[in-house]
Amino acid sequence: MSTWFSRRRPTVELPRLSPRTPPGPATKVDLHEVMPDLLPFLGQAAYLQLGRFETLSRVAADAGDLRAKEPVSVAAGLALSKHHGLIAEIRRRGDDPAAVMQPFADAIEGFGATTLGSDWRETLLSAIVTGGLLDDFFIRLAAGLPGDVGPRTAHLLGSDSGQEGILEVLREEIGADPQLGSRLAMWGRRLVGDTLLVARSALHQSGNRASDEERIEPIFTELIAAHTRRMDALGLTA
Amino acid sequence: MSTWFSRRRPTVELPRLSPRTPPGPATKVDLHEVMPDLLPFLGQAAYLQLGRFETLSRVAADAGDLRAKEPVSVAAGLALSKHHGLIAEIRRRGDDPAAVMQPFADAIEGFGATTLGSDWRETLLSAIVTGGLLDDFFIRLAAGLPGDVGPRTAHLLGSDSGQEGILEVLREEIGADPQLGSRLAMWGRRLVGDTLLVARSALHQSGNRASDEERIEPIFTELIAAHTRRMDALGLTA
Repeated sequence: MSTWFSRRRPTVELPRLSPRTPPGPATKVDLHEVMPDLLPFLGQAAYLQLGRFETLSRVAADAGDLRAKEPVSVAAGLALSKHHGLIAEIRRRGDDPAAVMQPFADAIEGFGATTLGSDWRETLLSAIVTGGLLDDFFIRLAAGLPGDVGPRTAHLLGSDSGQEGILEVLREEIGADPQLGSRLAMWGRRLVGDTLLVARSALHQSGNRASDEERIEPIFTELIAAHTRRMDALGLTA
Repeated sequence: MSTWFSRRRPTVELPRLSPRTPPGPATKVDLHEVMPDLLPFLGQAAYLQLGRFETLSRVAADAGDLRAKEPVSVAAGLALSKHHGLIAEIRRRGDDPAAVMQPFADAIEGFGATTLGSDWRETLLSAIVTGGLLDDFFIRLAAGLPGDVGPRTAHLLGSDSGQEGILEVLREEIGADPQLGSRLAMWGRRLVGDTLLVARSALHQSGNRASDEERIEPIFTELIAAHTRRMDALGLTA
């Protein structure tokens, strides 16, 4: 049994999936007991997109090569659009986006600091890894939201994030520098634990930790499988 | 006679216009002799928007207040859209945007470093001052471009830049901190000279410096008048 609900940093054991295995149908999991309330969900999702925008625009600024700046800035712009889309959703409910996002500010700023790499390539991998994991997770959660806001938010979060373009940038960097691959593989493994803690923090805890863990476990297994496929697409061992 | 064409940093004498004077009709100036070629124009304009995106997204990241982050990130996104619009224009002509922008990289990165303030409020004023001056100037130049690319580019550059929202952020900051106004007024004056040098660098020099200066002088006078109105809108003396 994994320890996603423990407070300490989990030691993440990643399953070594065959990269050619197609993603299976999403596991049916009853998230009802652990579903966050609507507004906190929107606030956290909105702040995470803002954080991704900040990370990607920093990478765009730091990457010296103009050919790298373009796809990275496109991805930054797409994260910003999603952020503004989620803010609009909060405003549509008559709430103040800043107030709804504020409770998540410290944790997400801290997460941004933790996942800041030692150079722009590491930080770009952070954007790919954390963005991929959290998008998958929040899209799953959105499906459990009440009314039409659920599908609308899932659609928004699932729309193009420019991931292909930034994967391509990173693939070229890895191709040009043989040392980079192993450094990024190690960095990628470090990112997973922190990212899953952020995902976990989105969930309402029912008070029965064991049953919560059992409920979430299959989803986290899926998230990690998708993560492994993304790392594989970069030629990196997850 | 001013010295816009001299290499040394100009001492800028700003005309003290009455803030209530409405902007007059644009002065008729024949720019033919000093007009840049199309591709360098597009490359420089595209890189300047990229630089503005980088500046504004850095301000969005540094501004702790979520209520400031929103309008600043909106303005960052608009600069990024213009950058991508200009890149698309370069690509439409069969040229490589990175190659066309590259000659301007060092100068514009240096300009970005020079106009970086000591805190996010100063940097935000930089975005307002340099963005306002350069937009006015490049829109004027665009009108002289051949074919339909001129009006299209002028329209793109003249579209919403989110300026109102960031002026409002700065007005609130100035209202809350009595010291800030005079610091920003001084900073604003420093920015004008460097910005006009960037504008000047866009122009083709005919070889007859005196006649070039005579041709450009009325435009620079207009740019500074518009700048004075923007500073006035912030309650700052230009």
